Amino acid sequence: MKLFTQTVGHDAPLTCYVQEPSAELATAATRPAVLVLPGGGYFMTSDREAEPVALAYLAAGFNAFVLRYAVGAESPFEKSFDDAKAALAWIRANAADLHIDPTKVAAVGFSAGGHLASSLATAAEDKPDALVAGYPVTLEEFGPPVGKELIDVPSHVSAATPPTFLFSTSDDTVVPIRNSIAFLAALAEHEVPFESHIYLLGPHGLSLSTNATANGRAEMAEASVRPWLADSVRFLQTVFGDFSVDGEAETYQTLVNRRRLGVDMPLGRLMADERAADVVRRHAPELAAAVGADAFAGVVSIRQAVSYQPGAMSDEALAALDAELTALR
Amino acid sequence: MKLFTQTVGHDAPLTCYVQEPSAELATAATRPAVLVLPGGGYFMTSDREAEPVALAYLAAGFNAFVLRYAVGAESPFEKSFDDAKAALAWIRANAADLHIDPTKVAAVGFSAGGHLASSLATAAEDKPDALVAGYPVTLEEFGPPVGKELIDVPSHVSAATPPTFLFSTSDDTVVPIRNSIAFLAALAEHEVPFESHIYLLGPHGLSLSTNATANGRAEMAEASVRPWLADSVRFLQTVFGDFSVDGEAETYQTLVNRRRLGVDMPLGRLMADERAADVVRRHAPELAAAVGADAFAGVVSIRQAVSYQPGAMSDEALAALDAELTALR
Amino acid sequence: MKLFTQTVGHDAPLTCYVQEPSAELATAATRPAVLVLPGGGYFMTSDREAEPVALAYLAAGFNAFVLRYAVGAESPFEKSFDDAKAALAWIRANAADLHIDPTKVAAVGFSAGGHLASSLATAAEDKPDALVAGYPVTLEEFGPPVGKELIDVPSHVSAATPPTFLFSTSDDTVVPIRNSIAFLAALAEHEVPFESHIYLLGPHGLSLSTNATANGRAEMAEASVRPWLADSVRFLQTVFGDFSVDGEAETYQTLVNRRRLGVDMPLGRLMADERAADVVRRHAPELAAAVGADAFAGVVSIRQAVSYQPGAMSDEALAALDAELTALR
Amino acid sequence: MKLFTQTVGHDAPLTCYVQEPSAELATAATRPAVLVLPGGGYFMTSDREAEPVALAYLAAGFNAFVLRYAVGAESPFEKSFDDAKAALAWIRANAADLHIDPTKVAAVGFSAGGHLASSLATAAEDKPDALVAGYPVTLEEFGPPVGKELIDVPSHVSAATPPTFLFSTSDDTVVPIRNSIAFLAALAEHEVPFESHIYLLGPHGLSLSTNATANGRAEMAEASVRPWLADSVRFLQTVFGDFSVDGEAETYQTLVNRRRLGVDMPLGRLMADERAADVVRRHAPELAAAVGADAFAGVVSIRQAVSYQPGAMSDEALAALDAELTALR
Repeated sequence: MKLFTQTVGHDAPLTCYVQEPSAELATAATRPAVLVLPGGGYFMTSDREAEPVALAYLAAGFNAFVLRYAVGAESPFEKSFDDAKAALAWIRANAADLHIDPTKVAAVGFSAGGHLASSLATAAEDKPDALVAGYPVTLEEFGPPVGKELIDVPSHVSAATPPTFLFSTSDDTVVPIRNSIAFLAALAEHEVPFESHIYLLGPHGLSLSTNATANGRAEMAEASVRPWLADSVRFLQTVFGDFSVDGEAETYQTLVNRRRLGVDMPLGRLMADERAADVVRRHAPELAAAVGADAFAGVVSIRQAVSYQPGAMSDEALAALDAELTALR
Repeated sequence: MKLFTQTVGHDAPLTCYVQEPSAELATAATRPAVLVLPGGGYFMTSDREAEPVALAYLAAGFNAFVLRYAVGAESPFEKSFDDAKAALAWIRANAADLHIDPTKVAAVGFSAGGHLASSLATAAEDKPDALVAGYPVTLEEFGPPVGKELIDVPSHVSAATPPTFLFSTSDDTVVPIRNSIAFLAALAEHEVPFESHIYLLGPHGLSLSTNATANGRAEMAEASVRPWLADSVRFLQTVFGDFSVDGEAETYQTLVNRRRLGVDMPLGRLMADERAADVVRRHAPELAAAVGADAFAGVVSIRQAVSYQPGAMSDEALAALDAELTALR
Repeated sequence: MKLFTQTVGHDAPLTCYVQEPSAELATAATRPAVLVLPGGGYFMTSDREAEPVALAYLAAGFNAFVLRYAVGAESPFEKSFDDAKAALAWIRANAADLHIDPTKVAAVGFSAGGHLASSLATAAEDKPDALVAGYPVTLEEFGPPVGKELIDVPSHVSAATPPTFLFSTSDDTVVPIRNSIAFLAALAEHEVPFESHIYLLGPHGLSLSTNATANGRAEMAEASVRPWLADSVRFLQTVFGDFSVDGEAETYQTLVNRRRLGVDMPLGRLMADERAADVVRRHAPELAAAVGADAFAGVVSIRQAVSYQPGAMSDEALAALDAELTALR
Repeated sequence: MKLFTQTVGHDAPLTCYVQEPSAELATAATRPAVLVLPGGGYFMTSDREAEPVALAYLAAGFNAFVLRYAVGAESPFEKSFDDAKAALAWIRANAADLHIDPTKVAAVGFSAGGHLASSLATAAEDKPDALVAGYPVTLEEFGPPVGKELIDVPSHVSAATPPTFLFSTSDDTVVPIRNSIAFLAALAEHEVPFESHIYLLGPHGLSLSTNATANGRAEMAEASVRPWLADSVRFLQTVFGDFSVDGEAETYQTLVNRRRLGVDMPLGRLMADERAADVVRRHAPELAAAVGADAFAGVVSIRQAVSYQPGAMSDEALAALDAELTALR
């Protein structure tokens, strides 16, 4: 992993957590990304919704970017918005170096950061490819109390708004739940695909809702809310597609076949049966020879060995070999 | 987070992922730690069991350290073992700088790395405080095929072995399940507290068993095995203790009380009731005054406001105020 | 369990699944209940949302009642509504015989049955104590297509509406998601505590969303939706309270203490230590004697044995005994 | 559901919970089954491990049978064993009437009932098709304390032993964990596919480990153990196969396609586009006509409508229609 900070927009620091390619993780050489926008009422950006969130998505296979956008009494909303737009643009422009797919960048924001992420997803020209909003502010009515003029998110929703995941708690006393409801209503009206989890219990500002992010307050570690993270990952994997896999998963039948003469039995075990060994030597002399030479050649089945070397044996040849071996059972 | 590499033992690189303290995460200023030992048959250390595993534990609140211990045909087991011991010693010696608790360091190893972690937990003088072993080699019979003389882990188990979490799959063809069983039998005999999950399906080397770590092979993303990670985190939190929290979680009664006159109603709402406002002004003039002055003073209840300022109001005074308010219902 | 059918309202059959008390399940002698209202567009009541749902809640500790309310072209909504009211009334009136708590009866309905359950929770005089609504119809606009005059649920929501759990899927083509949104908006406006899960994928009519209820259609077994059931159980347990438990759960410290001389060590083991045995004989001669006489007396600790016989030993006496035993370590 | 009691063996009552076929649950007309054997040290059969367990498997789609086998000081093990064998035989002999598959009958036992279930799976001539053993007694050493001569389960394991799921807790003071370990060792030696979860915390006799089955003792509701039930269901579904489903699950692409002219757009919506309506009328006049006539004909796509009526339109015709419609986008 590379960890560094890039300045974007109005000198806003963007902390970049970049998992780098490995030959052993070839299908994950290019990753989806999350741009994390912590909350804090536009007067701060909370550490509780910054690195812990980035790490959660990193662990799920994403590369992550945390933006400390402009905040404070002197800073108008537009400045924060500029920073967020600049961060998204910079991430996409540097996709190759950041080992990410520029068409799979989600904005993930909480509270005021949820407002900023939602603004990016609705009112910006260049939008993220998905939105994850945690207990977001979405209504312009929140502006005056914090001394800002805020975008009214619901009225900017359109068919161009990306797929959205929203979670919040029903009795949030800081950002009333009508902020969530109005946003969902607008998404529904414009037929934007969305997912939403509004939990019964829990105060505003839960972040991951674990002891690690609760900063000592039991109410901030409400267990019933914790699934939001895994649900949001599954949501993003559904929208973006997960890392590709090929071949077949094991089934119970795999275990059954492994215990019977055939191309699914581990080779070492197959060669221990004299008649089967003869058949293998005849059909696949190189595989047969490998078992003696290499301690681990014997643990894979013929089917597996062949799958690792495309072209080594045709499907027909494999079937014929299997037929001959199963006849010995 | 700080990310850097420290050399330990025989020039073995130890990659250090260190979450740093924040005033907003004060109860997590000192973290438990994992020393990750990737597998690879003592001839390599696999990327699939290195950083992805570190990130998974980081996301769960740990600091993480990945050791690339000595491997290869020329490298005897003792050299790898030295590296692992040196890594553990270095981590503990630098606990303060690494923001970790030196009494809460778990060794987490996979396959051959699981053997190394298990050796550290049984045969080393200074042992880790807990062990997480994924599909580990534990029997010395595995030595000759890889050209090494390996410690037989089960015969080194004693009452001094730390609490152990082990997972594997029942039909592993590379490291036979007897490696797990013999280890568990020894743990049971010596009354070492342990937890073990042996899954039905899945080949050797699953790592996190997700698409992200499967490197394109469907069988390496066996969904039924994925819970091991969260289970191991819960195991370590049980043994080490989780980050502390105080106060009370919300309950359904919290929501009910918030809707009724009393010290649990948000202050802004309480002040909107004329009779209640009079009572509050009399008992807690400063809180009453704050509501007008600060847009967010009104969202917390008197009970919450008091809990944030220990000493602001005695339990008796709070009860008296509550009685007077509830009498107005 | 008793399984029988009771006729209520306009000859509507109410199938009753009643778990009966057992001395071994004393704290569950009185259970919460669910009144299940299957969907089917008010022209049928679907088996897919009947018994499988009842069994799911039974397994979670509830008693369950499935109502086949009046349906069909000739049957006006009021007739269905009468049946539902009558079922709820009958259940509460017979609470003692049904081994349920008449203040903990939830209505659980799906689709049109969700409309009926929601009507019961908003427009009936006697309301259920909680509502679980699956992909419910809530808008009167649904009436004309099915040839009925339906209650508009959102406009009947009030502060008297019980806590509500709602789940649906965002792109339901049969009952548009605005039915859910409008209901949630009304709940929020009237400050009714609620929980809501709107999933991204899945068609109308998912029931439990398992293969068992999918009737062969893969889209009806959408895995991401399955958590609704456990979430609804947790919601109801939060609102109603779960079955009570006393005493302490095990912790890691329990295991540690069990291995050391003291009142937490199993008695049989304690008595095997000669000095400890002397102490026990002196302080608790009856417990000491029991170990020889009964094969299983030795497996519990003194603390456990005492907890089973309130009054057998004072807290002070237990502490004194523990002090004497731990001094021998 | 039918609920009745059948006498088997030495007058042992077998309570039968039989979900009956429904046209709406056609793929579940024949179900897998569980034979539940409650524990109780062979001196009782505990209610805590009887009906609650049956209900849990019923909810998961199984039919369930609870056997109150012979117990008590006067009753030799062989009598209990006879009862269990008779129950299994009776269930299979009456498979058609019980709506179960006689090749998918699992024995599920706890503690002493786990011993009985394990005996059935190892030492009986007719074995169950899978075994689920909860904190089982498996060693003959348990016999003398309960005054019986018990089968030593591990020594009866053979290749004929069915796939086995075992769970227990590592520090069980009543049935030491060596009972589990010895059984697993034998399964591994004989290459019986198995799954095993041994949890760190929790006393003997946890049943479902919920408040509902805890009978008021907090330690009997250890949350970390609860996943055993769902894991055992997944294990049995893996071994037996789950209920079949056909067709395709929804994907994010389904949602995208539903919003664009083509055969995946809901028909009502398609017909609202004049040009598309012309195309549909030309290719599929009957579907076009249905939209006006039936309020719900418009909610399904052409692809769905066709899938419900095999033969209504060839794949080629569907593709041609789709091409013509997508050309209009």
